[in-house]
Amino acid sequence: MTNTTGKIFSITSFGSSHGKAIGAVIDGCPANLELDEKDIQKELNRRKPGNSEITTSRSESDEIQLISGIFNGKTDGTPIAGIVFNKDQISKDYESLKNTPRPGHGDYTWRSKYGNYDYHGGGRGSGRITIGHVIGGAIAKKLLNEYNIKIISHVKQIGKIKAKTVNMNLIEEFASKNPVRCADPTAAKAMEELILEYKEKGDSIGGIVETIALNVQTGLGEPVFGKLDGDLAKALMGIGSVKGVEIGFGFDVATSTASEINDEFYIKNKENINKTANKETKYEDKKTKKNTDFSQYDIGTTTNTSGGILGGISNGMPIITRIAVKPTPSISTLQNTVDLERGEETKIEIKGRHDPCICPRITAVSESAVAIVLADHMLQSGFIHPTDLNKTH
Amino acid sequence: MTNTTGKIFSITSFGSSHGKAIGAVIDGCPANLELDEKDIQKELNRRKPGNSEITTSRSESDEIQLISGIFNGKTDGTPIAGIVFNKDQISKDYESLKNTPRPGHGDYTWRSKYGNYDYHGGGRGSGRITIGHVIGGAIAKKLLNEYNIKIISHVKQIGKIKAKTVNMNLIEEFASKNPVRCADPTAAKAMEELILEYKEKGDSIGGIVETIALNVQTGLGEPVFGKLDGDLAKALMGIGSVKGVEIGFGFDVATSTASEINDEFYIKNKENINKTANKETKYEDKKTKKNTDFSQYDIGTTTNTSGGILGGISNGMPIITRIAVKPTPSISTLQNTVDLERGEETKIEIKGRHDPCICPRITAVSESAVAIVLADHMLQSGFIHPTDLNKTH
Amino acid sequence: MTNTTGKIFSITSFGSSHGKAIGAVIDGCPANLELDEKDIQKELNRRKPGNSEITTSRSESDEIQLISGIFNGKTDGTPIAGIVFNKDQISKDYESLKNTPRPGHGDYTWRSKYGNYDYHGGGRGSGRITIGHVIGGAIAKKLLNEYNIKIISHVKQIGKIKAKTVNMNLIEEFASKNPVRCADPTAAKAMEELILEYKEKGDSIGGIVETIALNVQTGLGEPVFGKLDGDLAKALMGIGSVKGVEIGFGFDVATSTASEINDEFYIKNKENINKTANKETKYEDKKTKKNTDFSQYDIGTTTNTSGGILGGISNGMPIITRIAVKPTPSISTLQNTVDLERGEETKIEIKGRHDPCICPRITAVSESAVAIVLADHMLQSGFIHPTDLNKTH
Amino acid sequence: MTNTTGKIFSITSFGSSHGKAIGAVIDGCPANLELDEKDIQKELNRRKPGNSEITTSRSESDEIQLISGIFNGKTDGTPIAGIVFNKDQISKDYESLKNTPRPGHGDYTWRSKYGNYDYHGGGRGSGRITIGHVIGGAIAKKLLNEYNIKIISHVKQIGKIKAKTVNMNLIEEFASKNPVRCADPTAAKAMEELILEYKEKGDSIGGIVETIALNVQTGLGEPVFGKLDGDLAKALMGIGSVKGVEIGFGFDVATSTASEINDEFYIKNKENINKTANKETKYEDKKTKKNTDFSQYDIGTTTNTSGGILGGISNGMPIITRIAVKPTPSISTLQNTVDLERGEETKIEIKGRHDPCICPRITAVSESAVAIVLADHMLQSGFIHPTDLNKTH
Repeated sequence: MTNTTGKIFSITSFGSSHGKAIGAVIDGCPANLELDEKDIQKELNRRKPGNSEITTSRSESDEIQLISGIFNGKTDGTPIAGIVFNKDQISKDYESLKNTPRPGHGDYTWRSKYGNYDYHGGGRGSGRITIGHVIGGAIAKKLLNEYNIKIISHVKQIGKIKAKTVNMNLIEEFASKNPVRCADPTAAKAMEELILEYKEKGDSIGGIVETIALNVQTGLGEPVFGKLDGDLAKALMGIGSVKGVEIGFGFDVATSTASEINDEFYIKNKENINKTANKETKYEDKKTKKNTDFSQYDIGTTTNTSGGILGGISNGMPIITRIAVKPTPSISTLQNTVDLERGEETKIEIKGRHDPCICPRITAVSESAVAIVLADHMLQSGFIHPTDLNKTH
Repeated sequence: MTNTTGKIFSITSFGSSHGKAIGAVIDGCPANLELDEKDIQKELNRRKPGNSEITTSRSESDEIQLISGIFNGKTDGTPIAGIVFNKDQISKDYESLKNTPRPGHGDYTWRSKYGNYDYHGGGRGSGRITIGHVIGGAIAKKLLNEYNIKIISHVKQIGKIKAKTVNMNLIEEFASKNPVRCADPTAAKAMEELILEYKEKGDSIGGIVETIALNVQTGLGEPVFGKLDGDLAKALMGIGSVKGVEIGFGFDVATSTASEINDEFYIKNKENINKTANKETKYEDKKTKKNTDFSQYDIGTTTNTSGGILGGISNGMPIITRIAVKPTPSISTLQNTVDLERGEETKIEIKGRHDPCICPRITAVSESAVAIVLADHMLQSGFIHPTDLNKTH
Repeated sequence: MTNTTGKIFSITSFGSSHGKAIGAVIDGCPANLELDEKDIQKELNRRKPGNSEITTSRSESDEIQLISGIFNGKTDGTPIAGIVFNKDQISKDYESLKNTPRPGHGDYTWRSKYGNYDYHGGGRGSGRITIGHVIGGAIAKKLLNEYNIKIISHVKQIGKIKAKTVNMNLIEEFASKNPVRCADPTAAKAMEELILEYKEKGDSIGGIVETIALNVQTGLGEPVFGKLDGDLAKALMGIGSVKGVEIGFGFDVATSTASEINDEFYIKNKENINKTANKETKYEDKKTKKNTDFSQYDIGTTTNTSGGILGGISNGMPIITRIAVKPTPSISTLQNTVDLERGEETKIEIKGRHDPCICPRITAVSESAVAIVLADHMLQSGFIHPTDLNKTH
Repeated sequence: MTNTTGKIFSITSFGSSHGKAIGAVIDGCPANLELDEKDIQKELNRRKPGNSEITTSRSESDEIQLISGIFNGKTDGTPIAGIVFNKDQISKDYESLKNTPRPGHGDYTWRSKYGNYDYHGGGRGSGRITIGHVIGGAIAKKLLNEYNIKIISHVKQIGKIKAKTVNMNLIEEFASKNPVRCADPTAAKAMEELILEYKEKGDSIGGIVETIALNVQTGLGEPVFGKLDGDLAKALMGIGSVKGVEIGFGFDVATSTASEINDEFYIKNKENINKTANKETKYEDKKTKKNTDFSQYDIGTTTNTSGGILGGISNGMPIITRIAVKPTPSISTLQNTVDLERGEETKIEIKGRHDPCICPRITAVSESAVAIVLADHMLQSGFIHPTDLNKTH
């Protein structure tokens, strides 16, 4: 089941870049969630190519069709199958690559492993297959939204240009205003120029994307092999082009001391403690915020170097992840490779249409990856019950 | 099954820091692997505390007992249960922490999630539970060794002190010569001094640990949700104290261009190609090295920024991972926290015995994590067959 | 992942009786298996309604479309998505049943569980969803056929009419000659008449379907919780309308003694033993027949009350399963039920088009269920390697 | 993970008949369940040999030790490891069987599959490994008891002697009064005599065991591949010696018409409907009985041929399962077999101590199997939340 992920809220992905279609089957979504194609189209539009000058010129409408799992405008507890038919394939661009794997791409490993490899557009190794992730992520986000959880993603760095820190509540709005999806307008401008510069050179550049989950309650994560940070790392590292994953302070912990980075605890709503500490937790409260008792919920940390996860379990602070995204390997420069049929070294020049920097489009994918993991953990932890939304029948 | 990991080669872990025992049940190991307690003890000894001045002074012999799965000195295909009984618990050190979670530790989140939390020595949140990982890892390493795969781990950085690059074939030997487990002797000395400095201050320091797998053939990894890098990231991020994971060039890809970092292909043994390209691959060859046909196997990349993984699948180059390890959060400084029973803010001073830097001991754990993932993927990919070792019956 | 089954060879099913489509995503099928839509259509045609007077008159062409996973006429190791669009829904027949669950159907339990239930044609509780099973089963059968394994299914009993025992090699041919799919022509005729009799009465009748797997080698099945008989029982009991599953002698063991039913061992090819006992088993042999060494393979049992499975593991004899199939619960008689909206008892008369006996059509489904389990176990046991069919690349 | 079962409430089993120990690790049990060794010992005592003249004379105290997962007398959400050390092994009885598999036993298939097979006492193929099932089952029963679910098991038939139907509320008490564990005292007496008769002959006899779950609410079961009946069938068929599984009417459906066996619906508490139909379902109610709304809960069926499961989902009626148990294959008669080392046919006479009928002891195992499945499904369905028992912290 290597194309299925998730324990309760699960995604089964299928399809390839130049095949008939790409899609996903989402299982385990509680019944009675209002859902239609627009909810998913909205997210696919953020991922799809052709939104600006800095993306590939392949033009796909990426129109979603839901063919199961919805009844009377709401999920009915059965698997939700969503399909996007491919339209703008230009497969002839890839014929010359049939036997010559592109450096930095999966062509060589996919072909070695499976023998029969659809080399057109990278086949199932293409970034295009993240359409399946986004279909799943859109549904996960809709579900999490019922529990007040919000997931946002933005570009933190392109090459050496770093974005300034922006208030978490403003990131989504600010990042939506520029094609780079960077929340710092000044950096965004510089990043855009840098990307266009590499586009002209036929080269590409890497970057860092940060994804944040807000309003996640304390208690998500199942030690020791189902930890929240472990599952996030897997989901994020599994996105094509990602070579590093950080939680919270990330690699900066290597040069830190505990006295510098330990997050100290404090009580957030001191005035309320006495009144409610012994109050019975009601079911309704559980759905939104509270874990076991009130006193625990209102504990925060003065800093958040842990990125919202301690001991593999969420601590109620924002969950902060970052990924290192490599430069798109499809470049026009002549590169050394091997002709696998003839068994001899050769050179290739890659045609086709490619992104000079994939970071802006990957924001939608990393949001989806985080959303899918959180939706699954909300169900695993019992914070979402499968029947929560069954108000009427 | 959150304390079980692995799809075919799997580990079920149990136990806690101050409970009766810690152990693991390993399932899916092929029958007829020679195995006894010494194979595991050897690895546990590398992880256990008290090996040098720079580790905690808790003294545990960590003696392994195998109570199932071995018949006539060899695995018999049934689950292998290994147990280590705890001996040197000093639980009274922890009584004062009963209601006051330690900053940077899982105390708060574990207690919030489960209500009933064994706070002695961190309970099951303790680093001590990685004994289970190492039991599994020792068996995985023994199995991988039959297929010529070798896994090595060493400390790359402590605080700002970075080790110089050392030839891969020498890392294991060099790293074994100092208590820091750093393969660069000069850096090792400086790291040791730095750690002792923080020990005296009652503080601790972070670092970076690198783990490398050699002689891994092309074709391990199951796209799109069982990718090799995804599974490695999960296993490594799931180790306590890890806040970041990198593969190959890692976060450096963010500031790189494709023209700089694309790994170009070349043919390693040109002289052999013509003779063997059409030769039928024999079963015996498969076990050691070759994937589908000879010409493919002998392809290498001139650089290895990908860290041996392309498109989620191994490409035959060394697999390179790095983890960012945070400073042990148990420090003697007075820290702010909350009394969960009384619902009020307070301060704690942490007693107990702790490591001023956990990196040296974590090398054995990260090796285990990588070994478990690789053993499982060797079985998933069909490169190890369950009956490979059934020579006689 | 409750709509996904299988550990390595897995099926994810989706769709409902009167929704847009029904389909399945098959993951884990080795690359390079020749496969096209005709392979699947052939099996779907055996399951589809309208083949004879004794089935429902709902007329569906059940035309399969494969939208991923095939490249150059062969599987490419990526998920195979197959879809059948629904065409002949007559949903108005079901409006009167909206609030009144049909006795013997899943209407009541599905609606209770999910709240939002597509009651048209039984929604996802309909027998029609076994189209997904058959898509998966057709691929599994094609794969197993490469390893010489054959699966056949036939009707053993309808009401009190029992079929005589027929030579296993003739069952498939004989059963294909009559609409009842019974291998005993005399019984088949009587069964057909009995079914038509109940059809006229607006009633229905149950029966027993036997499914047999031939040429399965010794060694399939993973004790203790992945036993072959356990997995077969789950797959078969999970087919709608099945209320009992037997392996081999089944319930007759209750009245037997061990001296009567123990299957004694003998050597099948005595003449060959001496010559080959010490011969190295070659890989090519493994694919077809042999397990560890020749002497073991050629052992048989003089009787087969065990139905080919001992200790949860196949023993090389034919695997024999039987299922008890209940009479289709949709009958025209007035029945007592409850109006769930009004909270009062009422009566219903069921319209719609239904099978007076589902046994004949269920043969294709039970074959699929057995094929899926065996394909998965062949991969789990390492008897099928993922790269077996990668002859060329 | 073939020695692990369960999706949320899971059991990992290990050990063998004549090895050092047998045990199980139970994961996913909610925290704060009161549990000690006596809870498990009580159930093991019902399974253990030597309770009466009609069981094997192997004498094992089967003393359980819990070595993890309990803190302050309650589960703490971490894995519960339970171990029983073997004591009364008489391994020499088995030396003569080293190369000659016993008919009806797993010796031949286990040895073929794994090569290295512990033939003493049947190794891990022994019925003794169900100690692991019972450890898991005892914990599952304790957990289910918090939700008012009760599981009972009794012997329905031995050879041709059938027990009369006994009121469900009396079965447990009546069955506990005789060594056969049959709730019909007259039949029990006859069964006991029959078993002793076969014991004297050195032969053995089969039977049927029924297991019933009471007070299971509507809504357990996850279609289409996680159906409640599918999971029960797998768990029950996976018990050694079981060759058939029935739910409700079982094989009798084959000779029935729908008009005879459809279970009609009615309202159980008519007087309450109007008052409560629109009342908001409270969380507290959910834990004990109610599903979505009151009107649905109070629906029953006038008959229960479905055995409490419709469309793979529980319908609130008692869940009824039956298993066909084969006669213990170890008999003293001379039997034909094969010497696997010498590659020639031979005969064996089985020594060792064996049960002339395993049905009485299997009752404890089938109860455990059903309990484990139900506990897991209660968690999967969200009817048990992981934090339900976290009243205090």
